[in-house]
Amino acid sequence: MIKAGIIGATGYAGAELVRILTGHKEVKICWLGSRSYIDKKYASVYQNMFQLVEGTCLDDNIGELAGQADVIFTATPQGYLASVLKEEYLTQTKFIDLSADYRLKQLDVYERWYQIEHKSPQFLEEAVYGLCELNREQVKQARLVANPGCYTTCSILTAYPLVKEGLIDPDTLIVDAKSGTSGAGRGAKVNNLFCEVNENIKAYGVTTHRHTPEIEEQLGYAAGRPVTINFTPHLVPMNRGILVTAYASLLPKPDGTLPTEEEIRAAYETYFKNETFIRLLEPGVCPETKWVEGSNYVDVNVKTDARTGRVIMMGALDNLVKGAAGQAVQNMNLMFGLPETEGLRLVPLFP
Amino acid sequence: MIKAGIIGATGYAGAELVRILTGHKEVKICWLGSRSYIDKKYASVYQNMFQLVEGTCLDDNIGELAGQADVIFTATPQGYLASVLKEEYLTQTKFIDLSADYRLKQLDVYERWYQIEHKSPQFLEEAVYGLCELNREQVKQARLVANPGCYTTCSILTAYPLVKEGLIDPDTLIVDAKSGTSGAGRGAKVNNLFCEVNENIKAYGVTTHRHTPEIEEQLGYAAGRPVTINFTPHLVPMNRGILVTAYASLLPKPDGTLPTEEEIRAAYETYFKNETFIRLLEPGVCPETKWVEGSNYVDVNVKTDARTGRVIMMGALDNLVKGAAGQAVQNMNLMFGLPETEGLRLVPLFP
Amino acid sequence: MIKAGIIGATGYAGAELVRILTGHKEVKICWLGSRSYIDKKYASVYQNMFQLVEGTCLDDNIGELAGQADVIFTATPQGYLASVLKEEYLTQTKFIDLSADYRLKQLDVYERWYQIEHKSPQFLEEAVYGLCELNREQVKQARLVANPGCYTTCSILTAYPLVKEGLIDPDTLIVDAKSGTSGAGRGAKVNNLFCEVNENIKAYGVTTHRHTPEIEEQLGYAAGRPVTINFTPHLVPMNRGILVTAYASLLPKPDGTLPTEEEIRAAYETYFKNETFIRLLEPGVCPETKWVEGSNYVDVNVKTDARTGRVIMMGALDNLVKGAAGQAVQNMNLMFGLPETEGLRLVPLFP
Amino acid sequence: MIKAGIIGATGYAGAELVRILTGHKEVKICWLGSRSYIDKKYASVYQNMFQLVEGTCLDDNIGELAGQADVIFTATPQGYLASVLKEEYLTQTKFIDLSADYRLKQLDVYERWYQIEHKSPQFLEEAVYGLCELNREQVKQARLVANPGCYTTCSILTAYPLVKEGLIDPDTLIVDAKSGTSGAGRGAKVNNLFCEVNENIKAYGVTTHRHTPEIEEQLGYAAGRPVTINFTPHLVPMNRGILVTAYASLLPKPDGTLPTEEEIRAAYETYFKNETFIRLLEPGVCPETKWVEGSNYVDVNVKTDARTGRVIMMGALDNLVKGAAGQAVQNMNLMFGLPETEGLRLVPLFP
Repeated sequence: MIKAGIIGATGYAGAELVRILTGHKEVKICWLGSRSYIDKKYASVYQNMFQLVEGTCLDDNIGELAGQADVIFTATPQGYLASVLKEEYLTQTKFIDLSADYRLKQLDVYERWYQIEHKSPQFLEEAVYGLCELNREQVKQARLVANPGCYTTCSILTAYPLVKEGLIDPDTLIVDAKSGTSGAGRGAKVNNLFCEVNENIKAYGVTTHRHTPEIEEQLGYAAGRPVTINFTPHLVPMNRGILVTAYASLLPKPDGTLPTEEEIRAAYETYFKNETFIRLLEPGVCPETKWVEGSNYVDVNVKTDARTGRVIMMGALDNLVKGAAGQAVQNMNLMFGLPETEGLRLVPLFP
Repeated sequence: MIKAGIIGATGYAGAELVRILTGHKEVKICWLGSRSYIDKKYASVYQNMFQLVEGTCLDDNIGELAGQADVIFTATPQGYLASVLKEEYLTQTKFIDLSADYRLKQLDVYERWYQIEHKSPQFLEEAVYGLCELNREQVKQARLVANPGCYTTCSILTAYPLVKEGLIDPDTLIVDAKSGTSGAGRGAKVNNLFCEVNENIKAYGVTTHRHTPEIEEQLGYAAGRPVTINFTPHLVPMNRGILVTAYASLLPKPDGTLPTEEEIRAAYETYFKNETFIRLLEPGVCPETKWVEGSNYVDVNVKTDARTGRVIMMGALDNLVKGAAGQAVQNMNLMFGLPETEGLRLVPLFP
Repeated sequence: MIKAGIIGATGYAGAELVRILTGHKEVKICWLGSRSYIDKKYASVYQNMFQLVEGTCLDDNIGELAGQADVIFTATPQGYLASVLKEEYLTQTKFIDLSADYRLKQLDVYERWYQIEHKSPQFLEEAVYGLCELNREQVKQARLVANPGCYTTCSILTAYPLVKEGLIDPDTLIVDAKSGTSGAGRGAKVNNLFCEVNENIKAYGVTTHRHTPEIEEQLGYAAGRPVTINFTPHLVPMNRGILVTAYASLLPKPDGTLPTEEEIRAAYETYFKNETFIRLLEPGVCPETKWVEGSNYVDVNVKTDARTGRVIMMGALDNLVKGAAGQAVQNMNLMFGLPETEGLRLVPLFP
Repeated sequence: MIKAGIIGATGYAGAELVRILTGHKEVKICWLGSRSYIDKKYASVYQNMFQLVEGTCLDDNIGELAGQADVIFTATPQGYLASVLKEEYLTQTKFIDLSADYRLKQLDVYERWYQIEHKSPQFLEEAVYGLCELNREQVKQARLVANPGCYTTCSILTAYPLVKEGLIDPDTLIVDAKSGTSGAGRGAKVNNLFCEVNENIKAYGVTTHRHTPEIEEQLGYAAGRPVTINFTPHLVPMNRGILVTAYASLLPKPDGTLPTEEEIRAAYETYFKNETFIRLLEPGVCPETKWVEGSNYVDVNVKTDARTGRVIMMGALDNLVKGAAGQAVQNMNLMFGLPETEGLRLVPLFP
């Protein structure tokens, strides 16, 4: 059995890790870290786990935990892992970080967008960006995985084949994203109260959201050159789910005509047809967040528009599963040589 | 592998059966019956099942199905199974009926509350009321199980120990129940439109809801005499979940004092402490439907009120799981000698 | 023009006062009190008021305000007004208190249920309980009105005619109430976050909710003797609205038979037929909170149950309007000799 | 008093007309047309109107109605008014059509996008497009007003100043819109059931939504040349509200630099500073649909992005008010020489 420790186990992403790992045959949770609830029974903080999780919340002693655990998940605020990580720990255990600390390769980009000093930039190069479908082989060898952001996972997977194949002009890419409220975390803030979110929709972080450079970096690798995009997140009155609607101008083929929808679908098939967790929907079916709720799937589809010469790309995932804890477990499976889907054969819940 | 057929596979309860059986190691679905969607791919009706369920919807040929399936689940309107069931089929296969056709032992009570003529009353005596925690041994021997109603399961389990132990006067019992909207089914009705249900709560079926005689019959067995209650259901703007708040007058003990909360909790422990799917919460914790969402648990708790001499009993479950498909699978497990929890170790989804 | 001051203008009830008074022809708001947002523009705290309210939030200087305002609304936590009110202020201006400080006539009952020392019990006798439909004449003369609680208004008006006319046994009264989340206030608490409330329902404050003695006191006046009831509130995933479902045993008439539904409806007609804001629905129609949203109406109806000898009483109102700010304005209209409906001809918003 | 008839009074837009006109001092509703509910009391179809509207639903006899009414509102399916309108009626009364029949000047565009034969194209030229802020003077003279679509109103007003002033390249315009579910109407369809919409978001009508040519036509007038855009609507789990997030590339000024956010805001001020119903929010504040709920306001704002050279335009309105019935009443006020805001001083409801 793999012994897993979780730092930040009482946030929504941490709790989703607990939910998924509770159903994972090869894992035993050995540490439920939560600074806010030290010595409280975990199941009293998340009553859904009553009689399912017996443990008590512990403080964040990463040194001690590194000696006990085979893998440590950090579902912590930006800057936490960067401030405590040492080479010594990396020799003892594996790390899967759900924060942004090691997602961006360029230190200055991180510090500019996050407005935090990075305390351990020496690990940036080693860290593997844990988008399993793109970096599977590197993840298998990794000691330190940077688990991608929720918006980022959805945005990248939705646009990747077209950028990679050069079918769109990446500088025309506009990503309009919509997220359920669990993405905002369990902190007690007026903005996230039921009465403020319910019956309401708004954009936020317009032009400044921190997932922007993460999308740009990864799509830049696909394009083979820097990419600059617009990314606008919105808050939707639902608990879970991210929907991405992305727009880009199609690039003409050598014969001067634009790619057809069939040619575009073929690009998705090329990259995703063997991927368990990416479902290219039938032509004309628009992804809905409800169809992936509680599961590790990303549903994607495309529609071309001959009138404007653009393609509309759509993707949907559960922000707490494929957008956070599920992908973290998928990374863990790869790192420990387990079947990639172990513990993740979660059937979407509808309605 | 057990071959299971589902009649009514495209209603919400039928779809939940498909979801649960998809994750059940010992079962293969052999028939997806749906009169409304004959020849359509099941996954086009429930897109969450895309790439998970390959089958196509079939008409309701129960004769042919009885010859193929080891068990038939009927998630159909009242009267359907009663109108087609024959002794011949019962010799071929087992039936788990999610409708009310065989729940009430008295024909006249059925026909009065349901306003339907019962077409096969000859099976009423044989049918076993499939509330697993109360009738486990009978279910194991049954050919025909009447799967309890959603409100009923929650109401009975919430009040059972106190009625059985004679701690309350059952004729003072008032059950005020609240349900999510999936209980209303997937039929296209104005009353169930998003804009009619959202931001709204109402009672319905006041004094006339059909689950009333079912609760009365079962609690009557526990009391050893007929019981008459008030039952009021309410429609709540959420997809899943039933919450029952029940009130009754405590009966004095021989010494003339009323039972304490501890004594009352002891009664619940007596009946439920070995039950996997019934969780008696810690003192003072009120059940919430969200804590059981997607799972087969029923959470119960009680609070006594010395001022009024009453006890308030509370229970919560997921109407589509323990209130329908989950309990049906639990019954199937018992009927086939499988571990009772097989396929039902579903961890509640939060948030 | 009446000059109105509001202390606690940035809570939900305070904001609803601002909304209603903005549309009231005879009132000018002269003071927007909010300790939390001193010197901030009111419309930046409630952006719906952008370009409609120009003022800035002020500290709570009740002495100064008493000299300026014709009426002061206090939408403040329990204990606030009791701790600052002086006879001097009452000679200068009128007070409408939306807190519970002066609702209960008996000091010990207040201090037991609220666990607060009452700092000005000398005003308890003078204060008028501002349930306009019951105490209209006293309100007209009042200097200090205790505006009723939201649950209380709904519960009392729903049961009043039957208690007053002796048609039910008041000691059998059980009030099961369901409220939207704005009743929980705008404080930043984890329990009121969108993800905790949405897709969820729960009871809370079981046997201990502070509106219990308020209902008991007022119904006691109607009954002519003390009344003890059960009251259970529930939190519903919607912004606004309270639904009350109340149960009581019918008392036999002199001839030994129970009152009919027609006789019961006649009791409601007797008390409410001239009331603009109480709507007795057609027979068989259950009140829904959505039908009164944004308005000052209370919708009520009843259903008798011959099987159990009980009557089920139902009532619905908007907790922020008739349950708080609307009723406060109705009281103000009475105190200043204005038409009772001035500023309150708000048509319910649907959907 | 103006006598107003409504055809289609039991749809959501029709019901909102009834709500608004009930509070309008100069109007009396003389005809509540509803083919689906002939002879039923209107208040039994919309219980919120109980005791507020006494009338009974009537069949659609437009000839008789034209003789009675000073103005007829048609809140009817596409094609209805076009199939019954005659010059004779236009000489008797004024028409405000909430359908799309007379919104597009070009017959072939209408017939291509709506797939309906237009039965009275002879009135297309006369009909005035009733976007009051742009066509105020023409509306005042009109006999036949084509009331704009909900998405259209929001999209046009959000982008208009920048197109008109030539600050953006209109062919780069991408409009990503999000709507509450009342926009889908009150028809009984599975897709609009609570359980299908709740906890879900999806795009629909991608590249084919019928409001596209309407936006293009109106922005084309502003640009002085044809404009082709992408428009993508989404269904959001809320009752009311439309949010538009629009993207376009800024055009360089003569000096080669891009316009600043201040310069862009100045363009909005130019066109909207005297408009009661358009609120340009403070810099940095993103519009939220909840801030305009129940009111006739459109809130707009902009954010420039120096990194991409684009501007993000945002707008929010209530789809049933400014997006339908409110704008229709605003048009009526103009047509009858009343103050434009009469009956429309509706304060947004929050929460």
